[in-house]
Amino acid sequence: MDVKAIHMKGGVGETSYAQNSSLQMRVVNLMKHITLSTIVNLYIATTPTRLAIADLGCSSGPNSLTLIKQIIQSVDEACHRIDRLPPEFMVSLNDLVANDFYSIFLGLPEFYKMLKRSQSVFFAGVPGSFYGRLFPANSLDFIHSSFSVHWLSQVPKDLFDENGKCINKGNIYISLTSPPSVAKAYEKQFAEDFNLFLRFRSAELAFGGRMVLIMAGRAGRDSWGNGITFLWDVLAQAFSIMVSLGKVEEEKVSKYKTHFYTLCVEEIEEVVQREG
Amino acid sequence: MDVKAIHMKGGVGETSYAQNSSLQMRVVNLMKHITLSTIVNLYIATTPTRLAIADLGCSSGPNSLTLIKQIIQSVDEACHRIDRLPPEFMVSLNDLVANDFYSIFLGLPEFYKMLKRSQSVFFAGVPGSFYGRLFPANSLDFIHSSFSVHWLSQVPKDLFDENGKCINKGNIYISLTSPPSVAKAYEKQFAEDFNLFLRFRSAELAFGGRMVLIMAGRAGRDSWGNGITFLWDVLAQAFSIMVSLGKVEEEKVSKYKTHFYTLCVEEIEEVVQREG
Repeated sequence: MDVKAIHMKGGVGETSYAQNSSLQMRVVNLMKHITLSTIVNLYIATTPTRLAIADLGCSSGPNSLTLIKQIIQSVDEACHRIDRLPPEFMVSLNDLVANDFYSIFLGLPEFYKMLKRSQSVFFAGVPGSFYGRLFPANSLDFIHSSFSVHWLSQVPKDLFDENGKCINKGNIYISLTSPPSVAKAYEKQFAEDFNLFLRFRSAELAFGGRMVLIMAGRAGRDSWGNGITFLWDVLAQAFSIMVSLGKVEEEKVSKYKTHFYTLCVEEIEEVVQREG
Repeated sequence: MDVKAIHMKGGVGETSYAQNSSLQMRVVNLMKHITLSTIVNLYIATTPTRLAIADLGCSSGPNSLTLIKQIIQSVDEACHRIDRLPPEFMVSLNDLVANDFYSIFLGLPEFYKMLKRSQSVFFAGVPGSFYGRLFPANSLDFIHSSFSVHWLSQVPKDLFDENGKCINKGNIYISLTSPPSVAKAYEKQFAEDFNLFLRFRSAELAFGGRMVLIMAGRAGRDSWGNGITFLWDVLAQAFSIMVSLGKVEEEKVSKYKTHFYTLCVEEIEEVVQREG
């Protein structure tokens, strides 16, 4: 499976990500006070003439631009309070190469109208995986990523034994019925990926820059099968029923494993401590 | 006619711009020595750790990335000669919102393979008209635009009399049979547009930055109907024949006017002198 070619469903049709991402927007809204206070504090601490912002894994649909609008308005309000001219904004929207950037770009004229701000917000689409470098060194002031970094760079290799057989039979993701080695395989892949992610972002963030990441997670080390991970169990059951009805080949389903990981707070702390 | 929605034909099919832009590439190649020596001289004069380059009106197809590759290789060679580490490149590819950025982005993995350079060339797609601001102030080192700035921001308003009738009947562009007021209308629109273009680029170029523009032109003040402008005459004739054969409605053809202008050297000099 070529993970780089995977992307949310583009366009604005009934089954598009744009029409099916209200959960993601609710989470962004829940965390909004953290995102906005982080960038406002960053602005007040450094008062630059230009703020370079990146949204990693922006996908298409209204979520990304809605948050960008709130960020710009919050900084503008802060400028008003401290009696400074608002900065220019350079907003980079990143996602994988096959993402529907076209839909985002088409929405920009409407966005500018809605913003009611003079011509000083600039947009760029930046295609590529955030498990590689995306931006020049020290070029970003603020990095935001919402509901994206739980997507791994690949399906963990350790999910397959020496004969290429999957050790997580009947499941798509870590489930209560998975052997312990399955969770280990996912944990290892996540640790490798997140390590890369932090190294690359560290190179790209300018001195004093900040980052806010919103990721799906789990309550504790052994909390599998509940929260958002429950959805993978439901999908596995649905596939199993479709196989029993002869609607899908068993072999195809047995090959489908997700490259997704719901980490817990303890794991994040371990990675951050290791990286200093 | 909404000029902002106009774009070269995307994709890689038989009638796509990608498959029908070898003339444009030949012109880029003819001017290559100027483009490459300009950026190499700029690099040697300032030796920055990062070069921010923009290609305005990049369209899709191989032309833009081919030139970017040559630029990077030329700067790398210069670095080797003066014994410095090569800079990072931030390459912004600009065109109108509806441009086929998707095809360009899809070509990037192959481009990186071909480049054989470590991971320090970054790409962004920047959607929007170059008759508006596209980039933050002082953010670009080098601006390149090939075969684009002869496209005007709109069909000249003065082409239509007070009753909305076109004063250039039977023609699509300035032709030998056009009344003098037609050339005046185009010249006026070009002067306004080019003025805007220069003002915006002047804001975006960093101190010491350079710009290379390649545009279709004409030999002298009264050289209409030859060179590239001849193609519009041929197209007008073809339309006229199609109308006489009943294949196209006359009214549709009479409404179609191009927003294109082939300037001559004297006009460029006038605009540049006016702007100082």
